[in-house]
Amino acid sequence: MYPNMWSRIRAVLREPAAEFLGTMVLVIFGNGVDCQVVLSGNSLVSSSPKGDYLSLNIGWAVGTALGVWMVGGISGGHINPAVTLALAVFRGFPWKKVPVYIISQLMGAVCGAAIIYADYFHAIDIYEGGNGVRTVPGTANLFATYALPYMTDVSCFFSEFMATAVLLLIILAVNDRKNGPPPPGLIPLVLFFTILGIGQSLGMETGYAINPARDLGPRLLTAMVGYGGGVFTYRHQYWLWCPVIAPILGAQVGTLIYDAFIFTGAESIVNTPDRFARRQHGHIEHEPREKPIAGADSV
Amino acid sequence: MYPNMWSRIRAVLREPAAEFLGTMVLVIFGNGVDCQVVLSGNSLVSSSPKGDYLSLNIGWAVGTALGVWMVGGISGGHINPAVTLALAVFRGFPWKKVPVYIISQLMGAVCGAAIIYADYFHAIDIYEGGNGVRTVPGTANLFATYALPYMTDVSCFFSEFMATAVLLLIILAVNDRKNGPPPPGLIPLVLFFTILGIGQSLGMETGYAINPARDLGPRLLTAMVGYGGGVFTYRHQYWLWCPVIAPILGAQVGTLIYDAFIFTGAESIVNTPDRFARRQHGHIEHEPREKPIAGADSV
Amino acid sequence: MYPNMWSRIRAVLREPAAEFLGTMVLVIFGNGVDCQVVLSGNSLVSSSPKGDYLSLNIGWAVGTALGVWMVGGISGGHINPAVTLALAVFRGFPWKKVPVYIISQLMGAVCGAAIIYADYFHAIDIYEGGNGVRTVPGTANLFATYALPYMTDVSCFFSEFMATAVLLLIILAVNDRKNGPPPPGLIPLVLFFTILGIGQSLGMETGYAINPARDLGPRLLTAMVGYGGGVFTYRHQYWLWCPVIAPILGAQVGTLIYDAFIFTGAESIVNTPDRFARRQHGHIEHEPREKPIAGADSV
Amino acid sequence: MYPNMWSRIRAVLREPAAEFLGTMVLVIFGNGVDCQVVLSGNSLVSSSPKGDYLSLNIGWAVGTALGVWMVGGISGGHINPAVTLALAVFRGFPWKKVPVYIISQLMGAVCGAAIIYADYFHAIDIYEGGNGVRTVPGTANLFATYALPYMTDVSCFFSEFMATAVLLLIILAVNDRKNGPPPPGLIPLVLFFTILGIGQSLGMETGYAINPARDLGPRLLTAMVGYGGGVFTYRHQYWLWCPVIAPILGAQVGTLIYDAFIFTGAESIVNTPDRFARRQHGHIEHEPREKPIAGADSV
Repeated sequence: MYPNMWSRIRAVLREPAAEFLGTMVLVIFGNGVDCQVVLSGNSLVSSSPKGDYLSLNIGWAVGTALGVWMVGGISGGHINPAVTLALAVFRGFPWKKVPVYIISQLMGAVCGAAIIYADYFHAIDIYEGGNGVRTVPGTANLFATYALPYMTDVSCFFSEFMATAVLLLIILAVNDRKNGPPPPGLIPLVLFFTILGIGQSLGMETGYAINPARDLGPRLLTAMVGYGGGVFTYRHQYWLWCPVIAPILGAQVGTLIYDAFIFTGAESIVNTPDRFARRQHGHIEHEPREKPIAGADSV
Repeated sequence: MYPNMWSRIRAVLREPAAEFLGTMVLVIFGNGVDCQVVLSGNSLVSSSPKGDYLSLNIGWAVGTALGVWMVGGISGGHINPAVTLALAVFRGFPWKKVPVYIISQLMGAVCGAAIIYADYFHAIDIYEGGNGVRTVPGTANLFATYALPYMTDVSCFFSEFMATAVLLLIILAVNDRKNGPPPPGLIPLVLFFTILGIGQSLGMETGYAINPARDLGPRLLTAMVGYGGGVFTYRHQYWLWCPVIAPILGAQVGTLIYDAFIFTGAESIVNTPDRFARRQHGHIEHEPREKPIAGADSV
Repeated sequence: MYPNMWSRIRAVLREPAAEFLGTMVLVIFGNGVDCQVVLSGNSLVSSSPKGDYLSLNIGWAVGTALGVWMVGGISGGHINPAVTLALAVFRGFPWKKVPVYIISQLMGAVCGAAIIYADYFHAIDIYEGGNGVRTVPGTANLFATYALPYMTDVSCFFSEFMATAVLLLIILAVNDRKNGPPPPGLIPLVLFFTILGIGQSLGMETGYAINPARDLGPRLLTAMVGYGGGVFTYRHQYWLWCPVIAPILGAQVGTLIYDAFIFTGAESIVNTPDRFARRQHGHIEHEPREKPIAGADSV
Repeated sequence: MYPNMWSRIRAVLREPAAEFLGTMVLVIFGNGVDCQVVLSGNSLVSSSPKGDYLSLNIGWAVGTALGVWMVGGISGGHINPAVTLALAVFRGFPWKKVPVYIISQLMGAVCGAAIIYADYFHAIDIYEGGNGVRTVPGTANLFATYALPYMTDVSCFFSEFMATAVLLLIILAVNDRKNGPPPPGLIPLVLFFTILGIGQSLGMETGYAINPARDLGPRLLTAMVGYGGGVFTYRHQYWLWCPVIAPILGAQVGTLIYDAFIFTGAESIVNTPDRFARRQHGHIEHEPREKPIAGADSV
């Protein structure tokens, strides 16, 4: 009887658990590579550096791909509130699921950051120069993103906004069966290249958050474990407008461009403005699709 | 009613928009990685370099793959006038579409370069040593290609010509169903390896334009934003014969070699010299093909 | 007649031989890259270093992927006792096969390490400073894993435990047909990214054994060829609790999390606690599956 | 009429042309990356190095993958005499085709090396310190392989022998439909990882020829363009026993191991020693296979 009861509980928990685990894995690999590469630069931690900037980009790209591979067939593998909100506004992703998704993503990110913090605790002590010493300029940027000193606020916003718009253009294209998508199950491979490219080409200025959960979750963790409120007061609410609001708006604009110029599917509000007609078309549209494809599940 | 009207407008705009967006994404990643790697070498921009030559090659390779993944199923994903012209001459790609494709590719490249220029505006100021200072020897090569000093003109031409011929050999092979192509939707993965390889093996001498739009678009942008006419007077019309004419001719020769020795499909002028017979065969040939495959759409 | 007799012998040998060869290939590439990168740092061996930390991670990732590509369809491609034990406990992998699998994996790892040792024998002589000189601090870590000096025992255990749990979460996800798995035959590609990511993000502290055979096999080899018992007395039985017990337990916990929250297949003990019912369901479940998929073969 | 006549000529030329072009592309990327990485280390050639040892490995891996992608469906994509001979001995590849294949591979390798030599002519002049100066210790190793100084002859032989045996184990596995092969058309992706791994893990000692054509072709080119007979007198016929005989024998042993322990297909001499029975079985076996799969075409 137990499994039957658990099966019923799990039926409710499965999607939130998927978003939680997917985002957790993303942050484990992402924050992990940040810690390994930076902390190994201290000669008391390691006799030689264990990676460079390319390693950082590969780490975040691997984390994103593996996070979506892990849960893409369960919850759609958003693991990013900006993606969830873009699909809710444009593609009929149910609004009632949005809060659960975003909270799961955020909690998963906090949890992933906590695991990495526990894993690199001693190395951070050595790097900061004392047990329990935690400073924002020292190691807070191993977890959350901070801009390079020369950047203006407008440039910060633009950088995150634009990178997330590009991200959505690609996510939507590789989930569009009327375009030339990869085989189901290989969408995360495209995400690997996408995040790698964004990191290499658009990454250094703001640390390419492009995902509010990936940034806010680890930032909350740093606030809790001893970095203090400075992680939130940096550059006047930087945490809010740069890695949270800019990606959310960029995702909306990227989706608008794709749906306006490329997408012909009935599930987009651009093609079927009437909500009820869209839902109906959407269902017909999805009939032959056995399960949600990683990265852009819709109703 | 609005969406119906827009659907009709979009039916016309869709292919040009696809080539525009695909080339734009290519240049965003390509020019982006050029800027990030080079500009981060200045200690006032970044405390440590954010990438090396391998990063540059990966950036351009990712840009090409993602550009084709984004629009391959809509327009064929040429995103390169040399490819468009080769398919028009040898494979019956309609000549009436050629100007629209090339103009879209060029405009997309200008637009992508403009986005990157806006993104790295402040870093270029710091690198050049003053607000608004823009010099051709300084940072123009972040956008367009320039040859290494030791290169002769003949060598420059040969390098771009040969690299583009190799590119076309591979593009045509992985779109040839009678060869051993990857599954539809994974052709961009092969393009990733191809551009990565060209960059690593054939890249340093001329900066591997191998695509007139990728070079001329950003070059036009630099001329407009303050680098001046020097970007066009460098080495006596270098901009024309090296990154424009050489790739176009190389693509023709690569296609000729593939079609003469390997390709047996009826849509090639080598196999079906008669235009009308070819078009008929071409249609029959294409009947079972649901949608154009990224990289080599033909009639 | 000979081949018929051999066919009957091979029918028995095939699965153990597969696990042996797969693990051997894993260790050939893994220990090989360790030797090449580290030994080439000595100027008497090579005029310039042949790789860096990223190379190490790529080497182990390639080894894992190729090991599973080589034998995944024959034995399931576990090539890791922690995986075999997790599948035995949770997914009905037959316990009677467990000893044969683990012994084959271990012997394959010893054999792979011996091949690499033979290949780099002279370079090790040069690096150690004399023919036959073999020291644990010198080159033993080219074969087995040793922790960074700053690490506490608890941190060592946690690092291996957590990394292996993450590994199993991903292995099980990409073998779950009700999730969004890659096409059959591309699971090793995901393993490539997984091991690359674990190496880059979680690797430096303990050298990411995450596989008892991969560590114990080469450690036995070093003990035999002249490094002496020090490879086993390092940090009080480190060889046992860190690279053997921690991965085995981590694999169990990773599997428990996946099966509890995500997996709905009848072959899991979480979903079908009754052993006989599970076996029956399992068979039905597997009917349409032609052959075991690499990485998670079950009854 | 012309195309019909050409079609008949091409029917004969197609397989040799495919092996020629595939090997040419392999060597273009491989010798190209050797030249770019090494020559850019000279400050008169380039202001900064354009790559490192990882770049070399990626270059050869890309070349192999693209060579097979280009012609795998036409000729089987051997592009390596050691592979051709292993398939002839063990898998019934027709002996009458063997000379044509090997000559085509060798000529393609000479041609690819010539193209790269023409491309980097001026940079070699600068690197060698004078127009037309060509020395074996200087730049001959940009084209053919030479061992590190510390290596004994036995070690050189063992290294090439073993690496090629591993190569064949993997090639045969990913072409074995009763194992867990990747989708048709993605075998070159596995080859990319294989060559990358061999380069990183087993490469530095002898430069991993693992392919007689890849080494002998460029070596012939260097002898012809001015490096002189020294390329053949190095280490007493090194050119013959290390990069030619060792790979050929290693390929035989790798195939023997795979066919003895893993392969159950009737086309192997191990499973069907009788030549006529094998050929018959082979045909039946191959009936449902539409075209030869890249890397291991058999009768």
